[in-house]
Amino acid sequence: MSRADRLVALLEERSLDCLIVTDLVNVRYLTGFTGTNGACLVSPEERTFFTDFRYVERARAEVKEFDRAEAGREMLRDVAKRLRGQAGFDDAHMSVRAHRQLGEKVESGVELVAAGGLVERLREVKDEDELRAMRAAAEIADSAYESIRERGLAGRTERDVARAIVRGVEDLGAEGPSFPPIVAAGPQGALPHAEPRDVEIPAGVLVVLDLGARVDGYCSDCTRTFATGPLDDGAVEVYELVRRAQGEALGAARAGAARREVDGVARQIIEEAGHGERFGHGLGHGVGLEVHEDPRLTRVAEGSLAAGNTVTIEPGVYLPGSFGVRIEDLVAIGDDGPEILSGFPKELVTVG
Amino acid sequence: MSRADRLVALLEERSLDCLIVTDLVNVRYLTGFTGTNGACLVSPEERTFFTDFRYVERARAEVKEFDRAEAGREMLRDVAKRLRGQAGFDDAHMSVRAHRQLGEKVESGVELVAAGGLVERLREVKDEDELRAMRAAAEIADSAYESIRERGLAGRTERDVARAIVRGVEDLGAEGPSFPPIVAAGPQGALPHAEPRDVEIPAGVLVVLDLGARVDGYCSDCTRTFATGPLDDGAVEVYELVRRAQGEALGAARAGAARREVDGVARQIIEEAGHGERFGHGLGHGVGLEVHEDPRLTRVAEGSLAAGNTVTIEPGVYLPGSFGVRIEDLVAIGDDGPEILSGFPKELVTVG
Repeated sequence: MSRADRLVALLEERSLDCLIVTDLVNVRYLTGFTGTNGACLVSPEERTFFTDFRYVERARAEVKEFDRAEAGREMLRDVAKRLRGQAGFDDAHMSVRAHRQLGEKVESGVELVAAGGLVERLREVKDEDELRAMRAAAEIADSAYESIRERGLAGRTERDVARAIVRGVEDLGAEGPSFPPIVAAGPQGALPHAEPRDVEIPAGVLVVLDLGARVDGYCSDCTRTFATGPLDDGAVEVYELVRRAQGEALGAARAGAARREVDGVARQIIEEAGHGERFGHGLGHGVGLEVHEDPRLTRVAEGSLAAGNTVTIEPGVYLPGSFGVRIEDLVAIGDDGPEILSGFPKELVTVG
Repeated sequence: MSRADRLVALLEERSLDCLIVTDLVNVRYLTGFTGTNGACLVSPEERTFFTDFRYVERARAEVKEFDRAEAGREMLRDVAKRLRGQAGFDDAHMSVRAHRQLGEKVESGVELVAAGGLVERLREVKDEDELRAMRAAAEIADSAYESIRERGLAGRTERDVARAIVRGVEDLGAEGPSFPPIVAAGPQGALPHAEPRDVEIPAGVLVVLDLGARVDGYCSDCTRTFATGPLDDGAVEVYELVRRAQGEALGAARAGAARREVDGVARQIIEEAGHGERFGHGLGHGVGLEVHEDPRLTRVAEGSLAAGNTVTIEPGVYLPGSFGVRIEDLVAIGDDGPEILSGFPKELVTVG
């Protein structure tokens, strides 16, 4: 059953006659198109892909299971004419202006219905081709950590390390990094979204490293926290706490497990150690064509994990002014338990 | 007069009581904030910046002329409570869903009014600090061309050249490239939006190179077309045609000149040579915090160039199946004529 066929089943659930897909990640997922201007229309009877003259060649090479239509400069105008009945659109991504323009151009009798998130639901469950790309992307991230271990961290700037990571993953065959790497030493590691600075990494601190690669459009995402020399006992204790929480959560990440309960496994361990307030984000998130996508593993997440989900398991403890620790694996949920795609060791690694 | 003060003047023109600014580029322009979650509210009486807990530290360092408010996870909820009267929002960027959520949370009596593009109008005219960053970014692009001239092109893959450009601009002190470089050899050069391929560049062809750097958030953008050996006369003729059209258009790019007429200067020269159909894009576009922004120089552009505009002048001729030529300078429009920020020569450069 093709992705478009599975989407049609969701349309029927929602009593939609057709769906216009405009978000480029969703368009890529359904059609294979990788350019920067395209849309598609899916209904029980119709699979049509639209792009402009610049991408006609590319569409011919990439888009196989859809009819291909060349649209004018204002692509939505051409799409609008084809809409029928209850026509779903992506309210989470379409701008107010584009929606107004679309509404002005549809035939009478067409009703635009907010229907964001349908393709995202399909994307939550990966097939074997997607898993293959993600395994390759995760292996490249492992190699990047191996390079960091070999080259060391102390005396390099955070920005230099980040750039070496990007170049390393490119040289290993990735399309590029899946996001700008985080390299955060000492107190900087306590900021979950730190940007690499032009600041030398000192000896004897913890360094949070968060990086990923992209292969065939699919992302990996892996965090390790390295030491640049001997640490005081408190830091080692927090490291081992996060490592234990991460390991226990991994064990709980199975098909059928309630998402919030998987989050709860790690959270409870960290809370019992008195650091509950210092774990200020969710346990993990889905990864695929986007580095952050559904499903989410948080305190308030609804639903359960399913076979084919690919999620991160990444508890952290952040002590403002002191340091942070985060350990993150990328995991594919299988029928017989999780497949951990991240292979780099999680024992505390000390580098020079 | 601060940027926010000038924005208030535009609000009064449009009879708006306040404006909520959500597009992050516009937020950065007004407030200085460089994080990935922020918004601001501007009215005659109020300048308030909102972000979440992750960015409170950064906002304290970056945001000087606005009051700072920490918002919860759903930032728009906190912003909504502060809206009054006719409240403008950015319909070009805000999603249908965000708009609906905002509408549900405003006080009674507040009317949300589509008002995208107001900050973009301010951004069209650069001040001296902005020009300084853009000059630096343009110089780095020049150096990248110098490196390409020294290293040569034939025998390298397009992708290798593109990666070397990115690494080169980083090593020269840029934050990064302002967009993924284009390296398009032979017939590939006839596709205006070609992506670099894993294909070796042969000798004796034209190669379109389009690249830029980012300094303090500001972009440069420069295209040159190099030869990798002797060309036939037809190719040289097209090169010289584009070069002449580019030079003439540069001469016409003055404060007060109608935008469409500047486009027309280059277009007429190319049309008279019989290649009008092969120049399928506008003459140029504004550059600043974004690599493509207003004003546009096209056949249908309204309005005139003004001092402080920074635009590209980039005619091209694309012969499908054969080759393409594009030559692009970045230009700052001054009171006394244009300042050409791109310094690399435009005579046909032949490299090995």
